[in-house]
Amino acid sequence: MIASDIKDKKLAAAGKAKILWAGLDMPVLKIIEQDFSKRKPFKGIRIAACLHVTAETANLCLALKAGGAEIALAASNPLSTQDDVAASLVHDFGVSVFAKKGEDAKTYGSHIKAVLDTHPAIVMDDGADLVSELHEKRRAQIPEIIGSTEETTTGVIRLRALEKEGRLAFPVIGVNESKTKHMFDNRYGTGQSTLDGFIRATNKLIAGSTFVVAGYGWCGKGLASRARGMGARVLVTEIDAVKALEAVMDGFEVAPMARAVREADFICTVTGNKHVLDKAHFLAMKDRCVVANSGHFDIEINIPALKKLSKKVTEVRPNTLEYDLGRKKIYLLAEGRLVNLGSAEGHPASVMDMSFANQAYGLEYLLQHQKTLSPNVYVLPQALDQKIATLKLKALTMNIDTLTSEQKKYLETWNEGTHMA
Amino acid sequence: MIASDIKDKKLAAAGKAKILWAGLDMPVLKIIEQDFSKRKPFKGIRIAACLHVTAETANLCLALKAGGAEIALAASNPLSTQDDVAASLVHDFGVSVFAKKGEDAKTYGSHIKAVLDTHPAIVMDDGADLVSELHEKRRAQIPEIIGSTEETTTGVIRLRALEKEGRLAFPVIGVNESKTKHMFDNRYGTGQSTLDGFIRATNKLIAGSTFVVAGYGWCGKGLASRARGMGARVLVTEIDAVKALEAVMDGFEVAPMARAVREADFICTVTGNKHVLDKAHFLAMKDRCVVANSGHFDIEINIPALKKLSKKVTEVRPNTLEYDLGRKKIYLLAEGRLVNLGSAEGHPASVMDMSFANQAYGLEYLLQHQKTLSPNVYVLPQALDQKIATLKLKALTMNIDTLTSEQKKYLETWNEGTHMA
Amino acid sequence: MIASDIKDKKLAAAGKAKILWAGLDMPVLKIIEQDFSKRKPFKGIRIAACLHVTAETANLCLALKAGGAEIALAASNPLSTQDDVAASLVHDFGVSVFAKKGEDAKTYGSHIKAVLDTHPAIVMDDGADLVSELHEKRRAQIPEIIGSTEETTTGVIRLRALEKEGRLAFPVIGVNESKTKHMFDNRYGTGQSTLDGFIRATNKLIAGSTFVVAGYGWCGKGLASRARGMGARVLVTEIDAVKALEAVMDGFEVAPMARAVREADFICTVTGNKHVLDKAHFLAMKDRCVVANSGHFDIEINIPALKKLSKKVTEVRPNTLEYDLGRKKIYLLAEGRLVNLGSAEGHPASVMDMSFANQAYGLEYLLQHQKTLSPNVYVLPQALDQKIATLKLKALTMNIDTLTSEQKKYLETWNEGTHMA
Amino acid sequence: MIASDIKDKKLAAAGKAKILWAGLDMPVLKIIEQDFSKRKPFKGIRIAACLHVTAETANLCLALKAGGAEIALAASNPLSTQDDVAASLVHDFGVSVFAKKGEDAKTYGSHIKAVLDTHPAIVMDDGADLVSELHEKRRAQIPEIIGSTEETTTGVIRLRALEKEGRLAFPVIGVNESKTKHMFDNRYGTGQSTLDGFIRATNKLIAGSTFVVAGYGWCGKGLASRARGMGARVLVTEIDAVKALEAVMDGFEVAPMARAVREADFICTVTGNKHVLDKAHFLAMKDRCVVANSGHFDIEINIPALKKLSKKVTEVRPNTLEYDLGRKKIYLLAEGRLVNLGSAEGHPASVMDMSFANQAYGLEYLLQHQKTLSPNVYVLPQALDQKIATLKLKALTMNIDTLTSEQKKYLETWNEGTHMA
Repeated sequence: MIASDIKDKKLAAAGKAKILWAGLDMPVLKIIEQDFSKRKPFKGIRIAACLHVTAETANLCLALKAGGAEIALAASNPLSTQDDVAASLVHDFGVSVFAKKGEDAKTYGSHIKAVLDTHPAIVMDDGADLVSELHEKRRAQIPEIIGSTEETTTGVIRLRALEKEGRLAFPVIGVNESKTKHMFDNRYGTGQSTLDGFIRATNKLIAGSTFVVAGYGWCGKGLASRARGMGARVLVTEIDAVKALEAVMDGFEVAPMARAVREADFICTVTGNKHVLDKAHFLAMKDRCVVANSGHFDIEINIPALKKLSKKVTEVRPNTLEYDLGRKKIYLLAEGRLVNLGSAEGHPASVMDMSFANQAYGLEYLLQHQKTLSPNVYVLPQALDQKIATLKLKALTMNIDTLTSEQKKYLETWNEGTHMA
Repeated sequence: MIASDIKDKKLAAAGKAKILWAGLDMPVLKIIEQDFSKRKPFKGIRIAACLHVTAETANLCLALKAGGAEIALAASNPLSTQDDVAASLVHDFGVSVFAKKGEDAKTYGSHIKAVLDTHPAIVMDDGADLVSELHEKRRAQIPEIIGSTEETTTGVIRLRALEKEGRLAFPVIGVNESKTKHMFDNRYGTGQSTLDGFIRATNKLIAGSTFVVAGYGWCGKGLASRARGMGARVLVTEIDAVKALEAVMDGFEVAPMARAVREADFICTVTGNKHVLDKAHFLAMKDRCVVANSGHFDIEINIPALKKLSKKVTEVRPNTLEYDLGRKKIYLLAEGRLVNLGSAEGHPASVMDMSFANQAYGLEYLLQHQKTLSPNVYVLPQALDQKIATLKLKALTMNIDTLTSEQKKYLETWNEGTHMA
Repeated sequence: MIASDIKDKKLAAAGKAKILWAGLDMPVLKIIEQDFSKRKPFKGIRIAACLHVTAETANLCLALKAGGAEIALAASNPLSTQDDVAASLVHDFGVSVFAKKGEDAKTYGSHIKAVLDTHPAIVMDDGADLVSELHEKRRAQIPEIIGSTEETTTGVIRLRALEKEGRLAFPVIGVNESKTKHMFDNRYGTGQSTLDGFIRATNKLIAGSTFVVAGYGWCGKGLASRARGMGARVLVTEIDAVKALEAVMDGFEVAPMARAVREADFICTVTGNKHVLDKAHFLAMKDRCVVANSGHFDIEINIPALKKLSKKVTEVRPNTLEYDLGRKKIYLLAEGRLVNLGSAEGHPASVMDMSFANQAYGLEYLLQHQKTLSPNVYVLPQALDQKIATLKLKALTMNIDTLTSEQKKYLETWNEGTHMA
Repeated sequence: MIASDIKDKKLAAAGKAKILWAGLDMPVLKIIEQDFSKRKPFKGIRIAACLHVTAETANLCLALKAGGAEIALAASNPLSTQDDVAASLVHDFGVSVFAKKGEDAKTYGSHIKAVLDTHPAIVMDDGADLVSELHEKRRAQIPEIIGSTEETTTGVIRLRALEKEGRLAFPVIGVNESKTKHMFDNRYGTGQSTLDGFIRATNKLIAGSTFVVAGYGWCGKGLASRARGMGARVLVTEIDAVKALEAVMDGFEVAPMARAVREADFICTVTGNKHVLDKAHFLAMKDRCVVANSGHFDIEINIPALKKLSKKVTEVRPNTLEYDLGRKKIYLLAEGRLVNLGSAEGHPASVMDMSFANQAYGLEYLLQHQKTLSPNVYVLPQALDQKIATLKLKALTMNIDTLTSEQKKYLETWNEGTHMA
């Protein structure tokens, strides 16, 4: 029996159904899985992964396992685990999983330790918790590590900070930097699943509401577009002038948070930053404002400050807490953790297909180039983006044009300009 | 009297009104103009410019002139000159202009020569015609040149090809590469003004039509979004898989051109490529299809092939030609040249404000760093993007948030991750 | 103990929380409830209701009860009952409920009978099942009936057919005909909740998909708009030329169903008609097409025909059945019943607030005008629409303009036209 | 030589080209023209028309003339006449036209008189100026009148006021009430052409601006949708609670005008009401606000009040006046008259095709039913809507579904409800 710490193995059947269902929308990953199963590029390689334990992640594990890898998987968020999927991974597919939905900080930590205890050669990270743990507390293992991949904007920011300090100890592939990752997963994936989280958590009408999106990065753009698509009036807050201007030109109102909260029916933080919603903002909110976070960590909303302002906290719907401030009530979804995973099922499989294709290729790239890579943050070659996008279009049975030889030649010349007699 | 070749000096009054009107929407450029007028950074510097001779360009000239520059301006497209603006620049503002709307290839060439005959120290280009001319036919002048700026995607592609061959002879600032240029000018500017060109040229209803956008770069994205915004069903054609996938996820149909033309009511090329609409496409079009181009050069549509297929060509509205192929008619706008300038007035001043702020700063950057720049294509520092965007937001009286010191610190750390007990 | 037939009384606590939560978004109904509780307009009146047993309906029952009514409630759809709400209505609020989620045809029928057995004076209908039963099988009760209200488009169509045949036996208020009902509930309510049903049932990505909406009535318009808002390419099918043309002008593709099914990833029927998806359509669908219905009855999709074509039927997610046709698989949601209620939680409370305000006023209208109403289908006076909309805007803290006396006078005159000297 | 009063007959050639071009997008009217030319339903009938003298109206005249009518045409707005079209109608097509773009109130009045002096049997009106003149000053002619048609919302409001007073003297067909008129012309036509008017008049960027739409009727809905489609943030003002709520649910901000003007970059009135923008509003506007009207009459903006507040008025672009209030400037387009006609070319031919098909059928309906019609405002039968929409779809080569016999039967029954065992 493989090592694991999961909620209930009896959930395995439901989890397996979920994994198979998600797999149907991951055709690129399935092609990679077939290829890996022939070539076995990960034969004998131990991989420690810290990812959201969802049906889509399960399919990534299957592809890597088909390629010969041994995998130990911990959750990258205490609230994002699908317990049925965890059970099926362990019992149906032989993947070591250490993850329970709603686990406390101590258990979360023990799970991180458990996967690192397997002495992995490669680390797959989502938010840089594994890499951070290795750099801070497990330096002895560092020589064993070929490298790591990182899934998120937040993780890449942390790793670049580490790199900048000259302390990064092994090469990292910033999977998030691939176009076929962040342009799709972060935008269309986060857009839909975050709104889905709000709706499942509240069943409230979005049309006619005022929806505040904090942060106009890829995730924020996706969310703002979807909230408008459901009929909301959308306000955007930003700290970056270029992004703010882009939001304005996209037809959104831009305002400082202090003003935006006064009109908000819904607020969602997607900034990668800390205390974006803070005490002063809670005090200025309208009665019955619904707040949630879809950024990586649960520190975007200052929940301790909210608690301190409240006389009473009640769970009014699953994972939806009512903070009663006396004069008004504020509703917090999914404990301020990723609302798309805490209150819904996370990104649809179809976008994770491309994200995880990048993960799979990223892991192989680490292996293939281990001799030459230095301890830096790398971006996968653009040719892989084209390859993944091409496979995806093919799976969607979509055809596009190809350059004629005349056109190819034209694009390489510089001396064919405006005709002058 | 300064040297010039313009259509009619009596148009100067109308041109002046147009220039002043545009200036009202160019607050960033006006701030720069005031600053330049104090510092005179271009004192004694001769600038040769090849730009669309519009009211917005006129305002750029005024800012540079305020900074001490002497300017000679030629058109960057035979059809894009506003003759009244040209007249006013010469007669009211003392700028040498060589440009007439609808000039033939010979005149166009003579105007390019005229501005280079002024022996400029700096070149301002839009499509790389001046730089190309210098590299091909005026190599003797090259030692006189400090460097050049380039406004367009197309020009940057040409210059990078030149750079790649190792033949670029002086430094070039790719102004187009600035975020505050291409993300705004190419998207929102081209989006609105191209559609405006179609509507002024035809007065046809966009709602309910099938509108084909060839190319999903920044310009194509802007145009597709605006065409949908006016109620069209939009089809996108692409040769890049990632961009094609982005169009799909944005809800557009993606199809090869050979299929798209069969359903199109309107087709617009914005690719930077050649013969994107070719003989086979004309043959497959529906009766009464309207075709135009909003890419830099007039070679995106193979007009000679269209002419050859036609029995008769009639101008049915100003600048709108009916090509009668016997079994059907095809309508070509603005001779296949930039339809937003040929059939409308080009980009609104508000976006050119940022583009030309980049031009102004780019020219100064060339001067300030002339000692250290090598013959390569450069991108302006990101800090300038933030500066321009900040000035623009301020002019729009929009406020955004600023980072707290706690947030600044957080963004620079890497060891604050998921809380683990 | 009051009469009831519900699934499990232990669910009452969860149901009560849901009812209170929904009540927060029903401010207009709450104002009416307060008013009713003072005036007791329904004192001694027995009401039989056949409505979706949801948290919103529960709030309507509370308002009527506050007004003195005795209520017996049956489900208007075998799959739309929220069992926890049913439990709470019975145990916390003293409303007779006969409804179990997933009840079979026999139980459904017995519940209809149970509420009619209470010998109501007024009938509240949603799809005309109660009224139909009374006209077909319980004519003896007809003299006891003051009148009925009808909630849906489908019900109104049935009742007008009955009226046209001269067989309608008592007055009916077509609540659906009120602007504050169909323009909001049918459009924004159905739009959001139907898409919500698709997403909860499948967790599939809507962006980039082809979504077919059958029927461009109020519900179809809402759904098409929301599907596009989530990034789908939307195709519309219609049998009415004016509606089809409206869909075209709104930028949607319009096609016959036989062609639309060939490209569909998702198909939703919202027509009020029968066998809109039939054998030939199933045969033409792509592999893995997801089909569902959001029209009132479960006959829009010919499920028996689908079953006959299938070798195997498997439940792959809750309420999501895979029909394996050998060469391809088709997925049917919520048994072809209202997908927004079967796979999600039905319309958000905020729109039901207005629909049920109309119901409440409709019931009172029947009582007040019972002497003068003939056996016909009636529409509530427009003044009630203005009243409800005004209350709603006030609750949303939105202000609008009021006519000046000069403007009022102007609107009543006819002789102030173009100024002629 | 036929009677006429036009600007310049030398413009006829240009006008003819415009008329032919518009005719290409009016396939339904062309079918009617062919039919009329065979049947000659208007043989010997004199028609006095007061319509915008545009290329589209010219095509309506041709259809009626083909049907045997004699037509005298005056402008329905002093600024909406296309002088080249007027010239061609007179010189190429033998239609009496009395209209000059920019005519003063006296000339406008004399033109109204001129067409009524022809002693028409039928009147075609657009704003009810002819009908009003007949009722007020030419009662002697009333016995000669078979009836009238009315094109606009505003006209129908005036006529219903007249009808309500019991003073309407002959039957009127409210062409505007046909679905294939107001749902298309008022929404998609006004939407596009109004925005077109703003853009041609100013060449300003719509994206990122705040655009205030006064009135959320069919015209306002169209304009709001198009302004958003071009990237504006849209605010709506209303005096009707239901319409205001609809705007809210469509995702627009709704505010009283007094607040909206403080944020507006553009304001457009489309209300059919008087002094919607008044002194207090001008005082509250931001500097450089652009105001225009797209409602029928030029009284929606209180221009005398604006003038009184201004120190100086300058024409900064054609038909764009700068009102200098000292502390700020306000820009008024097209004299506050219909901006889509004054600053652009009016509705695209494709929507006028349906509007004028309704006019053509409406005129014939008056003739056919003259014996039975009373002096009231009539709406054309719905079957004509279906006929026109069907012809239009066919012309657009669009196919839709038809009911099966099973479906037809189902829609007529009332006793097929939820299956109960």
